[in-house]
Amino acid sequence: MKFFYSPGSCALATHITLAEVNADYEPIRVDFGNVEQSADAYLAINPKGRVPALVTDAGILTETPAILLYLAQCYPQAAIAPLADPFALARVQAFNSYLCATVHVAHAHGARGHRWANEAASLADMKAKVPETMAACLDLIEDEYIRGPWVMGDQFTICDPYLLTISNWLERDDVDRSLFPKVDAHAEMMMERPRTRAAWAEHFA
Amino acid sequence: MKFFYSPGSCALATHITLAEVNADYEPIRVDFGNVEQSADAYLAINPKGRVPALVTDAGILTETPAILLYLAQCYPQAAIAPLADPFALARVQAFNSYLCATVHVAHAHGARGHRWANEAASLADMKAKVPETMAACLDLIEDEYIRGPWVMGDQFTICDPYLLTISNWLERDDVDRSLFPKVDAHAEMMMERPRTRAAWAEHFA
Repeated sequence: MKFFYSPGSCALATHITLAEVNADYEPIRVDFGNVEQSADAYLAINPKGRVPALVTDAGILTETPAILLYLAQCYPQAAIAPLADPFALARVQAFNSYLCATVHVAHAHGARGHRWANEAASLADMKAKVPETMAACLDLIEDEYIRGPWVMGDQFTICDPYLLTISNWLERDDVDRSLFPKVDAHAEMMMERPRTRAAWAEHFA
Repeated sequence: MKFFYSPGSCALATHITLAEVNADYEPIRVDFGNVEQSADAYLAINPKGRVPALVTDAGILTETPAILLYLAQCYPQAAIAPLADPFALARVQAFNSYLCATVHVAHAHGARGHRWANEAASLADMKAKVPETMAACLDLIEDEYIRGPWVMGDQFTICDPYLLTISNWLERDDVDRSLFPKVDAHAEMMMERPRTRAAWAEHFA
């Protein structure tokens, strides 16, 4: 598989998951500094001009929640999703969907407000609200969704690399991660996993 | 199952899917006019204060992409997702994730801009950009993602009720659906399905 990513993007979740399932993959960095994500060569891979994209023998996949579930299904021996229990799997997908559609979107208003508004004053207004919206999301995750120590309880799942990816954004978003003790402990535990550390090192190299 | 919804919200996708799989469910309307979604009684069901929420014997589920996959798994005889093919299933989930995290979010900037900014001028700026962002999303869906006649080709899937839900918003978003012939034909075909029509009638009653 070829894995297209940009450092610090949500593609980190896929990067860690690829390492955790011990997949054979080639990481390919898309240079956002040179707007490579909007060049024809990359748009032929992902017409959305975003990362991650995963090129498999069957075709190309995008969207973090879909890619993570796909990896869980392709590497069942890694046991990173409750594949045999539709309700438990739906809880996993609901958590990842919340990260994707609400938390990531809240964060994106800091640096990518131009997606949704044009005026400089609007972008500044959006950016100023990010600490409040991100803290509200993290409150909900802390109080309602993390079971501990992993997101889904005793079992490490595809929710965990995704949560680390987003909790890693909190400093940039002016949110103090230590105000969310379970999320904070989760990030520390993640970084004790050898494969996660290796993926992290490769991702930010 | 108890199904919490609000008319015209993204919960329409779940409403149609419940009908298409012939599920036994009780529809419960959450009165957004009276901000019932933020009242304690509803927050006990969904702490996010959003719809849809599906109360099952196993527990409560939220987030459209997760609920639709759950229904596909619970009603395999309805054959509304390629459950035996991880790659094909990932394509389904990627499409629904795009609707959830990009297209729905673009639409939400029309009436729910207060989620991401405070000033009246910012909200007006966001609202004014919605026709452009939604048209860009629909261009991508029309050109890259709908295979036709259904989203995934010959097989009706959980992508179809979700696409109808969103293409139904286009008029409100000042986007001319007829500029997207495949999306337009898709909406017409959906409304020829008796169970979809019945769910639609119940939803908007």
